[in-house]
Amino acid sequence: MKLYDSKTAPNPRRVRIFLAEKGISVPTEPVDIAGKQNRGAEYAKKNPMFGVPILELDDGTIIAETMAICRYFEETNPNPPLFGTGAKDKAIVEMWQRRMELNVMSCITGAFRHGNAFFADRITQVPAFAEQCLKEAPGMFDFLDQTLAKSKFIAGDRYSVADITALCSVDFARVLRLKIDPDKQKNLARWHAEVSARPSAQA
Amino acid sequence: MKLYDSKTAPNPRRVRIFLAEKGISVPTEPVDIAGKQNRGAEYAKKNPMFGVPILELDDGTIIAETMAICRYFEETNPNPPLFGTGAKDKAIVEMWQRRMELNVMSCITGAFRHGNAFFADRITQVPAFAEQCLKEAPGMFDFLDQTLAKSKFIAGDRYSVADITALCSVDFARVLRLKIDPDKQKNLARWHAEVSARPSAQA
Repeated sequence: MKLYDSKTAPNPRRVRIFLAEKGISVPTEPVDIAGKQNRGAEYAKKNPMFGVPILELDDGTIIAETMAICRYFEETNPNPPLFGTGAKDKAIVEMWQRRMELNVMSCITGAFRHGNAFFADRITQVPAFAEQCLKEAPGMFDFLDQTLAKSKFIAGDRYSVADITALCSVDFARVLRLKIDPDKQKNLARWHAEVSARPSAQA
Repeated sequence: MKLYDSKTAPNPRRVRIFLAEKGISVPTEPVDIAGKQNRGAEYAKKNPMFGVPILELDDGTIIAETMAICRYFEETNPNPPLFGTGAKDKAIVEMWQRRMELNVMSCITGAFRHGNAFFADRITQVPAFAEQCLKEAPGMFDFLDQTLAKSKFIAGDRYSVADITALCSVDFARVLRLKIDPDKQKNLARWHAEVSARPSAQA
């Protein structure tokens, strides 16, 4: 198998951290996102939505979408579980994973995609949408801080895929010049130091 | 357990169809979305993100997020499987489920949320974003048509949760006055007739 990867985008990092937590090594092939390799005809045959990463299995099957790739490896390498164990716990992890993605990450990437010159010739940008996302992004950090006031990790007392999405979102917010305020967001700062100290964070 | 439900929104319908396909009956409590019940203090205790549906378990645990609720029932009632079977198949279903959600549904709901008076005092609307989503929505129907030219259902040869998300998205596009063009989108029209004829579509 082969993972089509990029070192600069947040979604490939989610998969790399997930694999590192599992102790799985997968051959990777870099995709030149800056050079629009993922928007060319060859790549579109593999993923018409242009997204990176994708996982190519040995039988040629392409798995696109970050969470689909992570779920593939959760099935083939169940330990340590990163999507929870048992019906209730799995649902709780999924709930938090989705909140991290649909609220936190989409706010940060929305500001970037619609506001940064990088995407100017890639999508039809709506600058007013970028501005609104930018306004809402600090509130997402507050939401994370409030969440982490109640539990050690995002989805409870054990590290999960929700932490991976949150970490990649917080770190990617550098493109908006948004940083954790360690005086006001103590819980978020505590969590960020902890999850960043895990070896997987370097993946 | 209890499902907090609404008859007018697309996400609760996704869960109702999912339950109907599984043959599961769950007590429901209607949430008055039009009257902003889901944006009040009582509901916020259950789901601070305001989303409907939520599932309340007998031990008081709240599962928010449509796909987290569906996954809960996939675990407790595995048959018929609606998220696929085996690592590869599950990943393929997840890939398509996410494409339906992150591309098709988010385009339609983006146009509605940012353009319709219903959301005027619920979120900070960005009319230009609604306009862009509205421009892109017909292309999403074309994408569905092309997808369904290659397979009987969205994620291959068997009905899955990806079909549920797609059906609820296509039907909700009525709020944009967007309809399937049966002459040009024959595959989409064929699929829509088939999945709408399943008893679950009435749920």
